[in-house]
Amino acid sequence: MSESETTPVTAALIIIGNEILSGRTVDANLPHIAKRLNEWGIQMREVRVVADVEAEIIEAVNACRAKHRYVFTTGGIGPTHDDITAAAIAKAFGRKYERNAEAERRLLAYYPPEKVNEARMKMADMPEGVALIDNPVSTAPGFIIENVHVLPGVPKIMQAMFEELRNALEGGEVVKSRTLVCFRPEGELAQPLGEIQSRCPEIDIGSYPFFRVGRFGTSVVFRGVDEDALGRAYEALVAYAEGEGIETERVAFS
Amino acid sequence: MSESETTPVTAALIIIGNEILSGRTVDANLPHIAKRLNEWGIQMREVRVVADVEAEIIEAVNACRAKHRYVFTTGGIGPTHDDITAAAIAKAFGRKYERNAEAERRLLAYYPPEKVNEARMKMADMPEGVALIDNPVSTAPGFIIENVHVLPGVPKIMQAMFEELRNALEGGEVVKSRTLVCFRPEGELAQPLGEIQSRCPEIDIGSYPFFRVGRFGTSVVFRGVDEDALGRAYEALVAYAEGEGIETERVAFS
Repeated sequence: MSESETTPVTAALIIIGNEILSGRTVDANLPHIAKRLNEWGIQMREVRVVADVEAEIIEAVNACRAKHRYVFTTGGIGPTHDDITAAAIAKAFGRKYERNAEAERRLLAYYPPEKVNEARMKMADMPEGVALIDNPVSTAPGFIIENVHVLPGVPKIMQAMFEELRNALEGGEVVKSRTLVCFRPEGELAQPLGEIQSRCPEIDIGSYPFFRVGRFGTSVVFRGVDEDALGRAYEALVAYAEGEGIETERVAFS
Repeated sequence: MSESETTPVTAALIIIGNEILSGRTVDANLPHIAKRLNEWGIQMREVRVVADVEAEIIEAVNACRAKHRYVFTTGGIGPTHDDITAAAIAKAFGRKYERNAEAERRLLAYYPPEKVNEARMKMADMPEGVALIDNPVSTAPGFIIENVHVLPGVPKIMQAMFEELRNALEGGEVVKSRTLVCFRPEGELAQPLGEIQSRCPEIDIGSYPFFRVGRFGTSVVFRGVDEDALGRAYEALVAYAEGEGIETERVAFS
């Protein structure tokens, strides 16, 4: 089996929150998680954005955890009435939803006694039998239940907690990428790109048109685990562009 | 039946594209579509991001079109080998994938003869029996097949084409929103917010913590179709904040 034929390690992200669906808040977690996972050899293959509705969360979690090696959720694990992610995930797994002793201990150590209240302690309620995800910013932990990793939605806190997962995740081969910007409309590059794609089936060639500073062009992104094959596909387009007199810009990392 | 009990008109968005899943491109279409739909009385309830993979597109389209009044897709309708949305949607509906005569006529009228090529004409290949969506920017049309609306991914073009849909969509009641920013941590507002939510079940109350300029606070977003109920829920929090001496900022539109 060649290097590029090993089974990829895939992941799904479930973004939980009415504020994303209404357009009020623009999600920033998807690009961050996707890039970081890619560096760790894990490929994001699917994302769902669901409302703060128990049945929707359960359906998305159960669909994604069956399809992917890893699932991540963001949002809905705070202290207020609209934070229902942990309880919904307990139901998705058919587990009890209960106060986690270690999470409770951490919250009680963090808040001064006069700041402890029932809403804040709710952040220690989780499905039974989970592993905690440390929160170096604001203490309230996330958790891991089988292959599902439950994280908060606030990007700064999510990002810090995501780094804590690095050792818990087993990546496969890292997908590398190269980008060639061609100042030629996509419709005029389609034929050579299709030919290069046919000759290099192990490389994923994406074509993204742009219009900037008055010029049409196409960013061509090559992605794959085999650096030799990546180089061959990339150089095939470079050679085509040179032969046709197409102005290009090489982008080292895309 | 009271005004707030009519059935909401719901929608799903399917974002098609490896570049979003890899984190290379940050999607800008979800917030635009969600806000515009909301103004037209249509509530976005679900979003999926899928790869440029036929089976994934088919699964997402068939799942979403059965659940929602309207489905929108963005991405994958250009001239290159990785643009497979139209063909996948033909399969999702079990329809023939064929050259659309009107789309072909428009493309031939738009491109000078020397710019016409097979890749560009592929943009006229669609499922049989669709209605076209006009493209005032770059001509290549999108299409409507039953309740599914197929749009390009480039935001400027997508936005222009989305406006063309306004008369094709039947909205319900418009969800209005009001926001109160409270300079008090979420964990200390949770109890009164939960009480207001219990008293106002027809209003969706969302609680979003923030930390800015050195201060913790919570943006509380009230959403609903009944303006009287919206006002009552909002004023209940204003009164609570005044009673507790919590500094607030009223936000007219959220």
